[in-house]
This record gives sequence, C-alpha cells and structure tokens, in this order.
Amino acid sequence: MSRVMIIGAGGVGRVVAYKCAEYPEVFTEFMIASRTQSKCDEIAADIKSDLGYDKITTAAVDAEDVPALTKLIKDYDPFMVIHVALPYQDLTIMDACLEAGVHYLDTANYEPKEEAKFEYSHQWAYQEKFKLAGLTAILGCGFDPGVTSIFTARAATHFFDEIHYLDIVDANAGDHGKAFATNFNPEINIREITQPGKYWENGKWVEIPAFSIRKDLTYPDIGPKESYVLYHEELESLVKHFPTLKRARFWMTFGDEYLTHLRVIQNIGMAGIEPVMHKGVEIIPLEFLKTVLPDPGGLGEGYSGQTSIGCRIRGIKDGQERTYYIWNNCSHERAYRETRAQGVSYTTGVPAMTGAMMLIQGKWDGTGVYNVEQFNPDPFLEVLGKHGLEWHEEVGADLEL
Amino acid sequence: MSRVMIIGAGGVGRVVAYKCAEYPEVFTEFMIASRTQSKCDEIAADIKSDLGYDKITTAAVDAEDVPALTKLIKDYDPFMVIHVALPYQDLTIMDACLEAGVHYLDTANYEPKEEAKFEYSHQWAYQEKFKLAGLTAILGCGFDPGVTSIFTARAATHFFDEIHYLDIVDANAGDHGKAFATNFNPEINIREITQPGKYWENGKWVEIPAFSIRKDLTYPDIGPKESYVLYHEELESLVKHFPTLKRARFWMTFGDEYLTHLRVIQNIGMAGIEPVMHKGVEIIPLEFLKTVLPDPGGLGEGYSGQTSIGCRIRGIKDGQERTYYIWNNCSHERAYRETRAQGVSYTTGVPAMTGAMMLIQGKWDGTGVYNVEQFNPDPFLEVLGKHGLEWHEEVGADLEL
Repeated sequence: MSRVMIIGAGGVGRVVAYKCAEYPEVFTEFMIASRTQSKCDEIAADIKSDLGYDKITTAAVDAEDVPALTKLIKDYDPFMVIHVALPYQDLTIMDACLEAGVHYLDTANYEPKEEAKFEYSHQWAYQEKFKLAGLTAILGCGFDPGVTSIFTARAATHFFDEIHYLDIVDANAGDHGKAFATNFNPEINIREITQPGKYWENGKWVEIPAFSIRKDLTYPDIGPKESYVLYHEELESLVKHFPTLKRARFWMTFGDEYLTHLRVIQNIGMAGIEPVMHKGVEIIPLEFLKTVLPDPGGLGEGYSGQTSIGCRIRGIKDGQERTYYIWNNCSHERAYRETRAQGVSYTTGVPAMTGAMMLIQGKWDGTGVYNVEQFNPDPFLEVLGKHGLEWHEEVGADLEL
Repeated sequence: MSRVMIIGAGGVGRVVAYKCAEYPEVFTEFMIASRTQSKCDEIAADIKSDLGYDKITTAAVDAEDVPALTKLIKDYDPFMVIHVALPYQDLTIMDACLEAGVHYLDTANYEPKEEAKFEYSHQWAYQEKFKLAGLTAILGCGFDPGVTSIFTARAATHFFDEIHYLDIVDANAGDHGKAFATNFNPEINIREITQPGKYWENGKWVEIPAFSIRKDLTYPDIGPKESYVLYHEELESLVKHFPTLKRARFWMTFGDEYLTHLRVIQNIGMAGIEPVMHKGVEIIPLEFLKTVLPDPGGLGEGYSGQTSIGCRIRGIKDGQERTYYIWNNCSHERAYRETRAQGVSYTTGVPAMTGAMMLIQGKWDGTGVYNVEQFNPDPFLEVLGKHGLEWHEEVGADLEL
C-alpha cells in the first residue's frame, strides 16, 4: 500500500523495520538509511532471515545534510519518513521532508546539541510550513512521548469530563547484566536525566533539583520501585492540549547503582557537553562517553525482566472524583525474541510504526505539525496490543499519588 | 656550585624548582624544561616573585625525542637531569643523559604506555651503560619510592640485625574540596591502583585482587583510616636489597567515595588503556579522563589536612624481636604556602631535590644505576627535615600489623 523511509539504524530503527515487515499489506516496501549503511544492511539481513521479507533497500546518509537527504528522499519517493535517528536531527529531516514533499514522524523532540533543553518550540515553529505544503508532521510518536500521550487522550475522551492530575510513571525493572549501560542513546539519556526536574502545577512550571522528589511506587507485575520526578518532554504538549490539568508530573525508576554511576559521571566531568581540547582535537566528553559505553542496541541478548509505563490520572466524571490507571508492561525477552532488540527500543519502535500506519490508512490526518494526543486515540489503541504492546486500564485504581 | 636541568613542570616540577631555588649555594642555576614552556615560565615567575631567585632558564622539549633532548642537555650542560615528567619517559631521558654525559635522577620507575606493569627491569638493564659512561642514575627518589626506601635503609643500618616484616603505610588525610581528583597524574594513579594487589612473602610474590585486603590503621596526628594493600614499585627493589625480608607490603588509604568513583570509572570503560575509535580519531580513554579531571597541580589552594607516610618494621636486634616505626607527616597547607603546590607534590619534590644535592655534594656516589636504599641514608635524612619533611621514629611502636 505504501513505501516508507526509516532514518536511523539503532535499536529503535531495528524494531520499526521489523514491525513494518510484519505488516507487508501496509508497508509494501521500505528503505532504512543511516550514517552507517552496514548497520542498515544487518537489520535487513536479519529481517529477511527471520521474516522472509525482502523489500528493504538500504542507504548511507548524513541526516544533517539537507540537500543530500532531500535527494535520497526524492529518489526513493516514500509516502513518509519515520525518523528514529538522533533528536539533534529533527529539524534537518523536517526540512528535507518539506523539500521532498513527504510526511514526517519522529519519536523525540528537537534538542540543540549545545544546550540540554527539551522543548517543542523549535518544531512547533514548522506549523505553517507543513500546512502550506499540505503535509503532516507527527511529533513524539514513541512510548513516552507517544503512547503516554495517547493514553492521556483516551482518558480525557472516554473516562473523564476533566482530567486534573496526571502522573506518568515509567519503570524499567529489567536486568541487562552490565555494570552500567543506558537503555537508549547514552548521550540523550544522560542529558535528559541530569537536568533539573520540572513539573506543571497550577498554571506554571515548578523547577526542582534533579532527583529531589522520590517515592516508592508499585508497578503492575513488578512491585515497588524507587521512582523520581524528572522533566519529560510530553509534559509540555500535554498541559497545552489538556488545559484542565492542575498538575502533571513524570516519574521514572532508577536503582541506587545507576544513580551512583550517574553522579560519578558528572563528578568526573564526563557528562559535559562543552568541547575540551585533547591532544589538539576538540572532544565533547559526553559524546566520548557514548563511544566507550555499551551500545544500547546490543543490550538485548540476555536482558531479563520488564518495563511498565503508564498514566495515573485523577479527575472529574459526572461531578464525581475518579481515578484511572492505564499502562503497558513489556518483556525484554519477548522483545528480543521477536526483533533482537531490547524492551526500551521495542516500546519506542512499535508506536512509531503504528503511528505511521495510522497516517497511511488515513485514520490520522490533517496538515501541519501535530503532537499525538491531538489525534483520535481509538484506532491507534485498537491495534497497539496486536502490534505487541498490550495495554490495561483500571478505573478506581489506587494511584498512590 | 652546580647547574641542573629539571624536566617536567607539573606539581612535582614546581616543588623541585622551589626547593632548588631555596639552596642557591648548591643549585647555582637551573633550567626547567617541559612540553609546554609556558608552564615552566609560570613556575620561574612565581619563584622570582616569592624567593627573588632569578637564575632559571626555561625551554620546551619533547622528552621522548632523544636527539632534541640530547641537544638541549648538551647546550645547557648541567651536572645532572632531575626527571619529574612522566614515567613513560624514563628511558628516553636516560638515553639522552648517556648521550650528553650527565647524571640522572627520577622519582618513578619506567612503565610502558601499553601495559600497566610497574617493574624496574627496564631501567636496571641500563646498569652497564651508566657504569661504562662513568655516570650515576638514581632511580625512585621521591617519597614512595624514595624516602620510604631510605627509611628502610636507616632501620636496617641502625636498628636491626635483620629486618623481617616491612609494611609501608601511606595515608592522605587531606581534603581538596573536589568531588573527585587524583593527587598526582590521574593516568598513572589509576593505572597503579586498579591493577591487582601484590606483596612479597616467604621468597615469592603473592597476587591478590585489587582492594581485597583492608584494615583500619592508625596514623600519627590523623587517627584511624581504612587502608588497602596494593602493589607499589619500591617493594621490588627493597626485597632485592634486603633479602632478610620475610614479608613486604604496601598500604594506602582510600575513602569510600574515592573507591566508588574508581569503580565507576572502570565500569564505564574510562580506565581503559587501549585506544578506541571516536569520530575517526584514536583516543585512549584513560588519557582523555586525565584531560577532563582536575589538574592535580591545581589542587593546592584550599587543600587542608596532611599526609602521613612511613615504614613499620619488625625484625631482630641482638637476638630480640623489635618493632620500629619511622614516618613523616606533611601538611598540604604548609606545602602550598611555601611552593603553591599541594602535599603530594611536595613530598615527592623535596626528596628529588635532596637526592640531587647528595650527588652534587658527593655524599652519594658510584657509577651505574642505583635504587636509593643502596646509598648511605644518614646524610640524606640529616637534611630532609630542614628541607621541609621532618621525620620521626619510635622503637617499640605498636605496628598494628
């Protein structure tokens, strides 16, 4: 029915490619492009061997080189680009999509290399350009942002007249057996979690020192885990699109060992994003750290345990206070068996493919730039479980918060 | 009386230069040479301003470039070279000294860059060359190795018929106020302490996992500190030169936070000495870590507390068992006031200057390669206190070991 182009050949790119290949009636053929073509070739070979799907083309491209990328898109002529490379590259890929006249989808908002801020302003500024071009740009269609935003939209649509308190809770109770590794790009992960925490309350942002609010939260099938309030990008669009929210927070679990490693990484200067001169070469410490740390894409084998991510919501329905919890648990082992990638890549890649399917099938539409909670959540959630991410909901749940 | 050339302009080079300038009747003039001439100039300017001594020449030199270094030595024509640059450079500097016909002194044994082994074999192999040239090479004349070896020689000469048990105990109870910093070159420090521990017992080396033997030892004026057995290079020459030793160990204090940082540095791969490819450039993680960590030479200001290093010895005198403890305590603040360097640089630099003085004054002599315990300890220890490192001894001390 449609050809798409996937940019990025890390763990998430691998999952998107596997999932597209599982629905050949929708994704009739596709390209995987990344800086390193051999990584694309490896994914294509694995898919051919595991699924027998052989409609994959691969290419090498620098996603920050707009003319080269535009030419590649024009030559391949896909319906849309699914961008699962680096968030630094959102804007150049959006530019190339506009030039080439194709739709766009990503899983993480643009962040300039030189400052660790997570905000949508850069991409929302493309609103008019995409409208004028008659194209759709879907922002943040991974798990969080992505499914958490769609979970919130489901709650607001079907279970509440007004949602007042939103707590997104993200647990990774997996064990990869390594002394230290991040579950996705360490550069992005460390930038994200070392910044000050921030949450929305009573119409404004409240900034807190990193890791200063902590609570034992109980996750389904996992049990209690120390969870910390940190800033996460979907909060920005959710408080905009659900203005009844009195408070919106994001919680993530971290073990003591992980936090110790993080603290030391900061203490020794390896979390720095300013270049330092080393033997006549400018090196950014955090980029070099990424080079020496285990590749998150290689954590899959032997990764046990599961993730649990969901939304805990309190609000009003028919004049009564109500609580509601909606969540997905994902097994690292099952993710690896299916795609040779671990659960954190899986939970990001499956929604990206599903969002692309929504656009291809016309179940989501509109021109301009969209966050996923602006679309109808129902068709997406109808197929998400079949796509590998079963979800559950409970009205009247004990939110603990 | 003599001109000398100091190679190295880090914290130790700074101390050696200050101490030479304090004895102009011995060190009539000297040169400081290092890769970065501006660091030499800075030391020379500080000394001129603090002490009024202005007989310092500076030069830029690559200590691994034997022809260039030989030429520099020949042009300046010193009595001897005091090498306080990197231990990797011991052999090239020894070669240049032989070529130029000048004496040599260092504070740490040669170590090839590609393997973290600490052994004297490489330098002992220069025995014949120095003998034939009629020159003296003094190895390991800092504090440890250096003063600890001379302390042991004093014990063996004056207090025992046979020394049987030697425990060198090295405490740094200072506080530099930084989250993490090493007290000397982090590259060398981390290589040294992350290797397996090793000690001498009953005629052979016993290897143990790093940090596996630990004991609370009480240091004079400091109190109890967690101390760990690790391998330290003077053990090799001491068991050779004092064959009555039944056991020889080296203990160093480490705080829990220091060990946590070290463990994380290893876990994340930053202690590695194999090059990794990063953006097309080969980078050795441990070398890059050195670039981002605080410069040990800059730790002096505000560094409080003191070091305590000494030898705890058990042996036989006149048929009776006897114990003996000899030690120095050094205040970081006092070291900084005098030389603008911290105590660990000070305790290394003062003995280097004192050893050079011994050779210049003919109190130590002989051609060939010598470890410092092979010389007469008395003239050295007679002046060491006056030079800034007062020492104390106690016969019948409680060794705790």
